[in-house]
Amino acid sequence: MPTFSHGDLRDVGARLFRACGAPEEEARLVADNLVDASLMGLDSHGVTRFPQYVEQALDGTIKVGAPVHIVRETTGTAVVDCGNNYGMVGGGRMVEVVSAKVRGPGIACAVSLHCNHVGRLGAYPQKLAEEGLFAFATVNAHRQGHWVTPWGGREGRLATNPLAWAAPADGHPVVMDMSTSMIAEGKIRVLMHQGKPLPEGCVLDADGAPTTDPKHFYGPPHGTILPFGSPRLGYKGFGLSLMVEILGAALAGVPLPEEGEDPGYVNGLFLMAIDPAAFGGKDRFRDLLAEVFTYVASSPPAPGADGVILPGELDFRTAEKRRAEGIPVADETWRLIREAGLKAGVTL
Amino acid sequence: MPTFSHGDLRDVGARLFRACGAPEEEARLVADNLVDASLMGLDSHGVTRFPQYVEQALDGTIKVGAPVHIVRETTGTAVVDCGNNYGMVGGGRMVEVVSAKVRGPGIACAVSLHCNHVGRLGAYPQKLAEEGLFAFATVNAHRQGHWVTPWGGREGRLATNPLAWAAPADGHPVVMDMSTSMIAEGKIRVLMHQGKPLPEGCVLDADGAPTTDPKHFYGPPHGTILPFGSPRLGYKGFGLSLMVEILGAALAGVPLPEEGEDPGYVNGLFLMAIDPAAFGGKDRFRDLLAEVFTYVASSPPAPGADGVILPGELDFRTAEKRRAEGIPVADETWRLIREAGLKAGVTL
Repeated sequence: MPTFSHGDLRDVGARLFRACGAPEEEARLVADNLVDASLMGLDSHGVTRFPQYVEQALDGTIKVGAPVHIVRETTGTAVVDCGNNYGMVGGGRMVEVVSAKVRGPGIACAVSLHCNHVGRLGAYPQKLAEEGLFAFATVNAHRQGHWVTPWGGREGRLATNPLAWAAPADGHPVVMDMSTSMIAEGKIRVLMHQGKPLPEGCVLDADGAPTTDPKHFYGPPHGTILPFGSPRLGYKGFGLSLMVEILGAALAGVPLPEEGEDPGYVNGLFLMAIDPAAFGGKDRFRDLLAEVFTYVASSPPAPGADGVILPGELDFRTAEKRRAEGIPVADETWRLIREAGLKAGVTL
Repeated sequence: MPTFSHGDLRDVGARLFRACGAPEEEARLVADNLVDASLMGLDSHGVTRFPQYVEQALDGTIKVGAPVHIVRETTGTAVVDCGNNYGMVGGGRMVEVVSAKVRGPGIACAVSLHCNHVGRLGAYPQKLAEEGLFAFATVNAHRQGHWVTPWGGREGRLATNPLAWAAPADGHPVVMDMSTSMIAEGKIRVLMHQGKPLPEGCVLDADGAPTTDPKHFYGPPHGTILPFGSPRLGYKGFGLSLMVEILGAALAGVPLPEEGEDPGYVNGLFLMAIDPAAFGGKDRFRDLLAEVFTYVASSPPAPGADGVILPGELDFRTAEKRRAEGIPVADETWRLIREAGLKAGVTL
């Protein structure tokens, strides 16, 4: 598998998205989010998305360069209309809005309207944590990819609805980023492409029977994903997923699309920050966090484990490695990226 | 097993706590939280706690009648010193504070200092949801009951660290209230008293071996509880638990107590609310929630299941039943309550 430097891939992405009409800064923002995910080993949210992001720009699903603006606000909240631009452009603006607002009331949040795929969710709270804030984010999908069953139900009604939080730490923030289902859809796709089976207890086929074959998930007919905690504790994952759905849609005043109706965009992003300056103070917060992280990590390794690993740590380690050694990109992925480039008028 | 009406148990609790020196209103507040938990079938957080709450008042752990006050605030945040009074008194005040503050910036939160056991966590967001708000809460324990292992670790470093959210709905709010561990400590105790085994995959003995015997958990030597999602996805439960720890302590500026040091109180409560009036509007929020709940619940029943049950629904059904038929109280529990009463000078 060929490897590319992350810098080269950033340039490739920026060229592609510029060729689709994005202003330089926005093209860079989108490329950086995707390449950062690839750096961290989160390949399903990485440069494999380049072709999709080009095609959606060319077919108008993504309104390249569309303005993002606040349509409603208070001192601590904002509803941000992302204008169907790239999700990272809307999400990036929401980071700025929340960061500015939180200095007043000490807590602030924003919700999106007309927001396309935001990529790696953890990126948004991570940015806020780099400013010394505690941050929390969720993202739903508007009746798209509703493969996750509610607890006790047979048909999918929710997306994999991830949530994420981040807190300041030395070097890089601690970043938790998790789906509220037994497995993320992107992971199923990756395993299918690798010809590998799924972990047990995650997926049901269209008849409701457990399966470890990714093809039985995609069908047709399409299978389902169980909520996180299944079989016994799936009500917890369901409860978390429902919260993500509420924060991403109902709170912003967005109704469920009618069945079969395409809402024309994908994600409902909720982003919140808390300023420790309003509580015990920023430096104190950072010191106490370091103390907690040290205390937690001091638990000796469980049998067969390498010891306690803080949320996000493995991703940051992978990023360090790939920053040095390059990012492997599958031949087929690179072929699709070049093909997308040609459509946009870029020869790679 | 004798049964009591919830009204009678409320009176019993109020008499007990008044006899310990609590003002009428605070005695009622504490009794109501515990009896409400019993009504909902959450017996480990119910009237079985009456004796403990009396004894902690008599030995001075709980400072009965102590004032609760805001020690630091902004327009959207408050640090509330609960004065080592009953946790429900501090928590009840935090509900009022958050409810008042959220009308300004549209989002608000409060954290506690010197807060005793708050009882059923869901009670606090539930109150805020009854006012039409979306609410979220977490509660940690300050190096007490740190039986939950961090992911990859062998020794406990976290409490069962529950989180809860609530949203408005017809009749009663939807209330999610979950521990971030594989099992709540209170449930282990209940199963031990019933002579029943634990579910598999939740608890390790002191040597790190899986066990379903509650006695192997309590030891000595003491066992541990695995984080929610174990074995494969325990990193998610760990990540949620760590967030609860951060919001309950580091954010408020509270350090970890030294090993073996008794911090003199138990809980760090974080309570947050979002006012939909700052977004799509209160009525619209309620309508869209109803739509989402209906959509989710419309998933046909999974094989062997009764269909989709919304978070908290089973608890509210139990409450309805017990409100009509009475609350069963084990003979031994009633004996202990009477015994505690005698210590406080109350003959029951």
